[in-house]
Amino acid sequence: MGVPVWSVDPRTGKRREEVGVEAEAGEVDTAVRAAAAALPALADRSVRARLLRGAAGLLERSAAEVIATADAETALGVPRLTGELARTAFQLRAFADIVDEGAFLDVIIDHPDPAARPIARPDLRRYKIPLGVVAVYAASNFPLAFSVPGGDTASALAAGCPVVVKAHPDHPATSARCADLLRRAAVEAGLPADTVVLLHGFQAGVELVTHPLVAAAGFTGSIPGGRALFDAAAARPRPIPFYGELGSLNPVVVTEAAAAERAEQIGAGLAGSFTLGNGQFCTKPGLVLTPAGPDGDRLVDALTADTASVLPGVLLDARMRDRFLQGAAARAALPGVTAPVGPGDGDGLGVRPGYVTVQAAELADAAGGAAYDLLLEECFGPLTVVVRYRDDAELAAVLDRLPGNLTATAHLGAQEAERPGGPAAALLARLTALAGRVLVNGWPTGVAVAAAQHHGGPYPASTSTSTSVGGTAIERWLRPVAYQDTPPALLPAELRDGNPLGIPRRVDGVRE
Amino acid sequence: MGVPVWSVDPRTGKRREEVGVEAEAGEVDTAVRAAAAALPALADRSVRARLLRGAAGLLERSAAEVIATADAETALGVPRLTGELARTAFQLRAFADIVDEGAFLDVIIDHPDPAARPIARPDLRRYKIPLGVVAVYAASNFPLAFSVPGGDTASALAAGCPVVVKAHPDHPATSARCADLLRRAAVEAGLPADTVVLLHGFQAGVELVTHPLVAAAGFTGSIPGGRALFDAAAARPRPIPFYGELGSLNPVVVTEAAAAERAEQIGAGLAGSFTLGNGQFCTKPGLVLTPAGPDGDRLVDALTADTASVLPGVLLDARMRDRFLQGAAARAALPGVTAPVGPGDGDGLGVRPGYVTVQAAELADAAGGAAYDLLLEECFGPLTVVVRYRDDAELAAVLDRLPGNLTATAHLGAQEAERPGGPAAALLARLTALAGRVLVNGWPTGVAVAAAQHHGGPYPASTSTSTSVGGTAIERWLRPVAYQDTPPALLPAELRDGNPLGIPRRVDGVRE
Repeated sequence: MGVPVWSVDPRTGKRREEVGVEAEAGEVDTAVRAAAAALPALADRSVRARLLRGAAGLLERSAAEVIATADAETALGVPRLTGELARTAFQLRAFADIVDEGAFLDVIIDHPDPAARPIARPDLRRYKIPLGVVAVYAASNFPLAFSVPGGDTASALAAGCPVVVKAHPDHPATSARCADLLRRAAVEAGLPADTVVLLHGFQAGVELVTHPLVAAAGFTGSIPGGRALFDAAAARPRPIPFYGELGSLNPVVVTEAAAAERAEQIGAGLAGSFTLGNGQFCTKPGLVLTPAGPDGDRLVDALTADTASVLPGVLLDARMRDRFLQGAAARAALPGVTAPVGPGDGDGLGVRPGYVTVQAAELADAAGGAAYDLLLEECFGPLTVVVRYRDDAELAAVLDRLPGNLTATAHLGAQEAERPGGPAAALLARLTALAGRVLVNGWPTGVAVAAAQHHGGPYPASTSTSTSVGGTAIERWLRPVAYQDTPPALLPAELRDGNPLGIPRRVDGVRE
Repeated sequence: MGVPVWSVDPRTGKRREEVGVEAEAGEVDTAVRAAAAALPALADRSVRARLLRGAAGLLERSAAEVIATADAETALGVPRLTGELARTAFQLRAFADIVDEGAFLDVIIDHPDPAARPIARPDLRRYKIPLGVVAVYAASNFPLAFSVPGGDTASALAAGCPVVVKAHPDHPATSARCADLLRRAAVEAGLPADTVVLLHGFQAGVELVTHPLVAAAGFTGSIPGGRALFDAAAARPRPIPFYGELGSLNPVVVTEAAAAERAEQIGAGLAGSFTLGNGQFCTKPGLVLTPAGPDGDRLVDALTADTASVLPGVLLDARMRDRFLQGAAARAALPGVTAPVGPGDGDGLGVRPGYVTVQAAELADAAGGAAYDLLLEECFGPLTVVVRYRDDAELAAVLDRLPGNLTATAHLGAQEAERPGGPAAALLARLTALAGRVLVNGWPTGVAVAAAQHHGGPYPASTSTSTSVGGTAIERWLRPVAYQDTPPALLPAELRDGNPLGIPRRVDGVRE
């Protein structure tokens, strides 16, 4: 009969509806084989573009129902989910444009050169082909944009890979509804419905990553879960790439000059950013290095006032709530740590946002620093850590202790920002080593879907060097193949002389 | 005092000279830290180009000595090593050109768009930065082109990464000489000598891949060694990319039509290819699917005659010789397998090339097929497996059993090669799924250094989707970073408006 999968309302803790059952081993195999059978049909790029645009349209036409379902399961609120749906549809269409353009195929053609040194060169033509079935592990905190119809799915389909999604247990009904829409879009594009298959269940997710026909995986979630799947992917007889986004502290450095110029503004901005979406963004600023003096005090005062005025909010599920409250309490209980606005219980199932603060000298201390390791771990939910530093040495010592991040942010003074080669430049270089995206005078929450975006970073931010947002996310699901001395009639059209498909290529060193 | 490292003459089995000692744990740490200290100096692209060109020049000026040393250690012969040195120098200069051009930085710039849908877009500018210290594991069979001054080193330096090379025990003296040249080239380019550091010893190699400051690794070698290092890289607290090339069968399919048209020519070509370099190429054709009828017989007759006329040759070391003889004997002893030209002992320490043959029906049989798994494993040395197939179903069944490969080759008839969408196109599609390079009417030995080259393929050919030969090999050692709303004065020059460095970029969707 299988274990039933329930949709739960986090605002009440009550079960809403039974969505289906957890997949068992045989069903995982069936799902993957069905998806694999869709691979040949996806070879046609125009069909892929049609699928992606069709999915965007269906999602928009079902917006009211999808958003209501997602809100009932996640408590993220209708305004936020309305924006997330628009972002998800935009992303699907952006990948359709990328498919049409064809630059992602990375076509390189070298014509034969019998006179080449040191030896004659054959005819070589390279492009990229889809890897095969992609396993997507949906995120808790984005029921649309990083889940069933999200960036991993969109980029994998764009690459020509069928997708098996493992639904997140926080939004199984939304997942089922979105999977229905994607499967309908597939059929309407002339593809098998099983181009996208949905699975529920923890064990199904574990089996999925070890299935012989699964060729790659995308994951957004926690370090323990992501690392376990990464390890399983690496331990397969034939290892597969596992593109996991596992966690990020997203450090922010406020310079003395910035605090002197804009203490209140920065404090207010920080309160807005770390409490946005109830602190459930992977780019939440979780560690803020702030000067120790009076300007830093002004910043903290503004942060205190603005944080205290934020209403309690409901987290995605009860387990997260428990973990948040425990994590906040454990941080606040560390020696030398204070909690001017202590995060904690709100009304009903809501939690109050808050922050803790500590001196940089304690955090960076080589001997006692390990006691503060907890402050260097992401705390999912509306909590941030304010670290007060007295000088550049203390700042540098804290930065040296940080793990990899999705983002790192500098708040600079006006003059600092205009001086090349100075301390601000050195600070940005230091932050570059720590993150995949570096911001100046902004906040990391909000990840634009753009060609130049990079949403990744040194481990644990990502298990790879790739991005899960933006146009280059498609690169994860492809592998190059080169054809040597292959007769024109047998070459893929993308590789034929004369560029019959009119795609960007590099031919004998020249871009066409 | 440390374990001494000896250079050994494989033609006599005698020790030539003591080259140094195996590195111990403390020395691995010292080496990696010294290399890491060179990272900032490598940030300047013009210095990197100078280093690469300088290394090529020094290698050429020391050619006589380097080649003599390599020949004495590997028995590969002066003509082959002369070509390999030319290839290695060419490769170093090719990467210098790539560094100068700057396309590998993959610059993408999106200017801010406050009117962007669904939300305003910030200023985003992305390029790629070096990963950090790269560990290179040298190959046995290419003492230059895939060793100390080889493609992994050249591409890593081009990317801006310092390199710690673990020397292969088959050519420690050549390794030491080449490392001296590279270090001299570094100093002459204004870089620290420790931009390239050489280590000897198996255990040093194991420690290297787990060193916290090592950011990525490149490897060319066997499945057991490569997989052990891959596993160690994946099991680190912070996993790193491990780009390993572990082994390849390089299947060749000869169609009925090709055999009918050119049986003798194909048989002779095969004999030349699988015995080239004494069968010690990673692209050696190791499994040849040949029609069962009289045309196939003619092909095999030509193969027999040409193989029998190849003189015995000395393998890289005594262990390889033992393993080759054992592997050849084990294959020939399988039921139903015959060895018309049995590989085996030659004069002195040489080995005779040979081949074994089997019916496709036996190899592909689902029940008994496992007994023939050995025929689907690479046998390093001058041996190939000829599989006779009676029809397309038998051919397909054998292809279905093959692991991933660096190359897959089709020999087609003249008419087949001219017909799009026919059986030959279907065959190429099938081979594409099996390999990273697909050839028609050629032989896979010989890997051109070219922009369009791809030397990689499904596992075990490669542990990744990348290439170790050709211009795109540089991609392995980089990670993207995006700058958001960063003041012009603090942006890297590559990302500033107006393209001050004149590199290929993509700005607001348009290539410049």
